[in-house]
Amino acid sequence: MRDVSIIGIGQIAVGDLWDKPIYFLAVEAMLAAIQDAQAEQIDSVYIGNMLSSTLAGQDLLGGLASDQVGLRGVEAVKIEAACSSGGAAFRAAYLAVASGQVNFALACGVEKMTDHPGAEITAGLVGASDADYEAAEGDTFVAINARLMQRYMYEYNVKHEAFAPFSINAHHNAINNPYAMMHYEVTQAQFDKARMIADPISLLDCSPVCDGAAAVILAPTEIARRYSPFPVKICASAIATDSLALHDRHNLLGLEAVELSARKAFEQARLKPTDIDLFEVHDAFSITAVLSLEASGFAEPGLGTRLGLEGDIFLGGRLPIATMGGLKARGHPVGATGVYQIAEATLQLRGLAGKNQVKDAAIAMAQNIGGSGSNVVTHILERE
Amino acid sequence: MRDVSIIGIGQIAVGDLWDKPIYFLAVEAMLAAIQDAQAEQIDSVYIGNMLSSTLAGQDLLGGLASDQVGLRGVEAVKIEAACSSGGAAFRAAYLAVASGQVNFALACGVEKMTDHPGAEITAGLVGASDADYEAAEGDTFVAINARLMQRYMYEYNVKHEAFAPFSINAHHNAINNPYAMMHYEVTQAQFDKARMIADPISLLDCSPVCDGAAAVILAPTEIARRYSPFPVKICASAIATDSLALHDRHNLLGLEAVELSARKAFEQARLKPTDIDLFEVHDAFSITAVLSLEASGFAEPGLGTRLGLEGDIFLGGRLPIATMGGLKARGHPVGATGVYQIAEATLQLRGLAGKNQVKDAAIAMAQNIGGSGSNVVTHILERE
Repeated sequence: MRDVSIIGIGQIAVGDLWDKPIYFLAVEAMLAAIQDAQAEQIDSVYIGNMLSSTLAGQDLLGGLASDQVGLRGVEAVKIEAACSSGGAAFRAAYLAVASGQVNFALACGVEKMTDHPGAEITAGLVGASDADYEAAEGDTFVAINARLMQRYMYEYNVKHEAFAPFSINAHHNAINNPYAMMHYEVTQAQFDKARMIADPISLLDCSPVCDGAAAVILAPTEIARRYSPFPVKICASAIATDSLALHDRHNLLGLEAVELSARKAFEQARLKPTDIDLFEVHDAFSITAVLSLEASGFAEPGLGTRLGLEGDIFLGGRLPIATMGGLKARGHPVGATGVYQIAEATLQLRGLAGKNQVKDAAIAMAQNIGGSGSNVVTHILERE
Repeated sequence: MRDVSIIGIGQIAVGDLWDKPIYFLAVEAMLAAIQDAQAEQIDSVYIGNMLSSTLAGQDLLGGLASDQVGLRGVEAVKIEAACSSGGAAFRAAYLAVASGQVNFALACGVEKMTDHPGAEITAGLVGASDADYEAAEGDTFVAINARLMQRYMYEYNVKHEAFAPFSINAHHNAINNPYAMMHYEVTQAQFDKARMIADPISLLDCSPVCDGAAAVILAPTEIARRYSPFPVKICASAIATDSLALHDRHNLLGLEAVELSARKAFEQARLKPTDIDLFEVHDAFSITAVLSLEASGFAEPGLGTRLGLEGDIFLGGRLPIATMGGLKARGHPVGATGVYQIAEATLQLRGLAGKNQVKDAAIAMAQNIGGSGSNVVTHILERE
């Protein structure tokens, strides 16, 4: 199994991009990544996307976008793992290069949500739950996560206000990220007064509906320096799953797929949680970030919010998270998110994260979560 | 890059399976493959599926089905490449095992179409075309293929009746396949009088809408014999793409993605078309089979129908195709088809195809086509 590195990244600014069809977003991110890598060749394209079939009536998104980029003929497929589609596409690209059959693989995450009515988006997103036993009962994706948060607050006697630092940190970090959607601060007072969405999840616990695309290019580590002055090595890649429906889980608040995929990743990289310099966490909701931190081994069960309250998660803290704004404030174009996380972590490891640079960042972890914890993709990246 | 072999196959009978949700179909095929392989372990699951998000509102199909099989926790993702999703999932499984990180990969193709109104299925299937430039103009998937057939008949002066052998052969072969949907013969006279669907495509040119699932298990070749008395080696695996919209193609009747993926496959296997003992062709429409045979190198442009008229494609002929009924008569549950093809080719190479056994079959090719030729997956398999 050969080693694989990231040689190029490309992002477009997340937002309401009503003037472009979905594949244009992918094309722009792909072109940016190709330019960044100075790549002369792409062998295979992996598109991470959740909602294009449902919302845009467009399948074969990989081939469509590749054709427009000028890569007609190239291998192209779409990977779907709900909100973790982007991370799963990145892993598919990793395995393809690791196999030795593919030399240059491009992973692109793309999603376009905002030009559809809210009801259609809600119906699309709930596809990440169990259609027969959750969605059919009228559940929405936010309601399912609200049950997790409700239970968490009850079991561990944690107040809603304790979740505020996750939102405050993400918004603060997004201000210096030109690709982020929300360029404004959020305060504890605003968090505490935010409009309720699905009790106890309020507006400022939620990542926004938005459009975006990000792309990265992978190549064998042994030739990576020919294409990039700062290649970043993939030292762990793991996916694990859990039951889709909350009522089928063995451990409701333990997120077993997070625990399993993080454990596999740490084993592959021969690292432990304290070795991680920054963590691109999947903060689709503030409760998701907390559960991810705990199940990944960064905090004991029930103590995840302390990492916020004690300042560990902020830039300069012990474990900076959402360093470029996270899902909360960079935005969460669902199928694109996992690749944004990888691009952002790569920027940090290159030392090019600007005002948000984590000092001496050498090892980064990115975790992309699909469903309410049912499909979890964990990657660990290392500065070469 | 390590060699990879097929150690287990599982199929369910294609048909109108109204009494089961989509993931049940996958579960049955997966369990059959696991039993066939005597597998003690599955590391990764790749689900090929096109329409589950749109028709069933169910994403994360890989994790959902794996959970029901008893594989909770396993890596699982869905691969979408329209009608070639099954073949693409098989290739993803192949690359995962070839990489060395995954030892036992399961590829499952699954589709459930019949419990939805025709208009919904038609709207879903046209997602395989260019949504903005074909579907938005009112095109349907059969209409797009009808234009290809119309043009073919005009350019090469071929009459519609010349396509009959493809339908006759497929139906004849399906009779002895317990997993096929259509267990009856079709005659030239019936073909010539068949109801028109989209001129010149008539009912007997078309594969049927149906439900089904098939699964295969892959393992490193060096340990394959521990699990199967007749492992089948994957000696080539390639995907190529072309523009989605017909009007963007360089060569309308040449199907460049077919040509490219077949050429790559022959190069990988160091084989030529005459080395192939049987060909599981993508006969979604009879014109598709003809174009595939020509672009793959089995016939000169314009002469594909002769392979039917001269009997080459029948069992006992020079190049038997659709040996277990093909898409036409086994049925075409779109995302499942590519895995059915692999399972059927494996059965032939094991020498267990019963009355349809191709004598001394040692090398088989399977080709799965997405869109109207825009995403093409070619595999070559070899008896060990």
